[in-house]
This record gives sequence, structure tokens and C-alpha cells, in this order.
Amino acid sequence: MSETVETSVAPLLNVRRGKAAIEFYKTVFGAKVIFQTDSPDGEIVAQLQVGTSNFWVADESPVHGNSSPETLGASTFRMVLIVDEPDAVFAQALAAGAQSVWPVADQSYGWRVGRVVDPFGHHWEIGKPLEK
Amino acid sequence: MSETVETSVAPLLNVRRGKAAIEFYKTVFGAKVIFQTDSPDGEIVAQLQVGTSNFWVADESPVHGNSSPETLGASTFRMVLIVDEPDAVFAQALAAGAQSVWPVADQSYGWRVGRVVDPFGHHWEIGKPLEK
Repeated sequence: MSETVETSVAPLLNVRRGKAAIEFYKTVFGAKVIFQTDSPDGEIVAQLQVGTSNFWVADESPVHGNSSPETLGASTFRMVLIVDEPDAVFAQALAAGAQSVWPVADQSYGWRVGRVVDPFGHHWEIGKPLEK
Repeated sequence: MSETVETSVAPLLNVRRGKAAIEFYKTVFGAKVIFQTDSPDGEIVAQLQVGTSNFWVADESPVHGNSSPETLGASTFRMVLIVDEPDAVFAQALAAGAQSVWPVADQSYGWRVGRVVDPFGHHWEIGKPLEK
């Protein structure tokens, strides 16, 4: 017998330098670590909470099918971060070492949003729906 | 002035054959489409809800930095799906065309979990924490 759990899903981001990635996500997105394991060789698996959501970060292991964007030179997904102050969070990301892919602007599809690539190669759209 | 929004984050999965991917996620994970745009050439952007979480799916556009795992031959993240019946959902995924990476089993870190790769190249860990 085990407890009943609610259905939920969250992404696990493969990175190099996992510990540095956690620090970046804490600084830029206000992430809180809600679970973390450290292996003797310094590799981590961590679950981070941002607002009402959570996501996982782990050091890559390409031999197990877990490659970082730095290793692949591209990424197969992006994170859609909804925040009340996209301009401020976007600026914070750049200040902490992310690069702008395109700046925050009002988009024709009704969002104010910009996109960055973080120092670990993961892409983030940072925005919010515009008032209707 | 715009409305105040709650902070949240959700992954957007790049795929080939976006419409087929939505059908797969509906069938296997009980996903509900909460937002969808269809372009004239048949490409989609959709937001899907699974339990208490949501994620996005969109047709890839490598020129814009949005590559599918089929295009890259690997993936930079995986989805961690928590469900009350991992064995049943795992079997459902295989029946719908996913491939087993490793079967559902009790793991030393306190989860019952298995891993599949779906027909679009995205990896899913399907499991739940074991009773303490």
C-alpha cells in the first residue's frame, strides 16, 4: 500500500555545473530548493519551487540519455515563466549572465514577453498575458 | 496597467507533428487542451493541463532555436510525471507507441518509477514517491 498522490508533472533540466545552476535560478527567479541530493563527486539532483510551480535540475549524464544544451549545442524545449514584472526579471537574468535572445516587448498574440538563454544553455520566455 | 499574475513556470516541448503529439498526451496522460492556436500551415502551439500542472507543446522551428528531440537525436530535459498508478500509465504509454527506457520498479531513492521515450522523442519518468 502506498499513499494516494495528486497527478502533476514538472520538467527536469539537464545541466553542466548543477550547483551553479541552482544558485542562478535562486538569484534570478527567486527559486527555493525543496529537495536536493548531493553525490560524493559533487553532482546534484534538486527540485526547485518558483511561485506555484516546481522544476528539477540535475547534472547531465549523456550516457544515460541526459544531455545538457551545452553538450548538444541546442535545446529541445524552453521554459515559459509567467511573472508580474517581466521587464525586471528579464533585466535580472541578463545581470546574472543570461543572454537576450529577443527583448521584452508586447507581442501580437497578447503577451508581454522576452526570451533569454541562461548560462547553462536553457531558454526562458519571461512574460505575462496582457490585460484583455 | 495590466492585471497582477501569479508567478508560475511550465515547459514548452518542441515536437514534429504537433497535432499528433497533442493526441498522444491526451490519450496517455489524460491531458486537456486549455489553449491552442493553429497556423494556416497546420502548425500548432498548445497548452495542456495534466492534473495540477500544465505544459506547452509546439511544432519545432530549428531556425528560431526550437529543435525537437527527433531533429537533435537527443533531449536536454525530461518530464517527471507523478501519478497514483505509475504501472498503469506506463503500460498505457507503451500501448500508444512509447518505448520503455527502463521499466517501472521500486528505486533505492524511495520512488516507484519507470522511464519511457514518447513517439516524439521526449522522455518521461512516470512514478510516485513510495510510502515512508
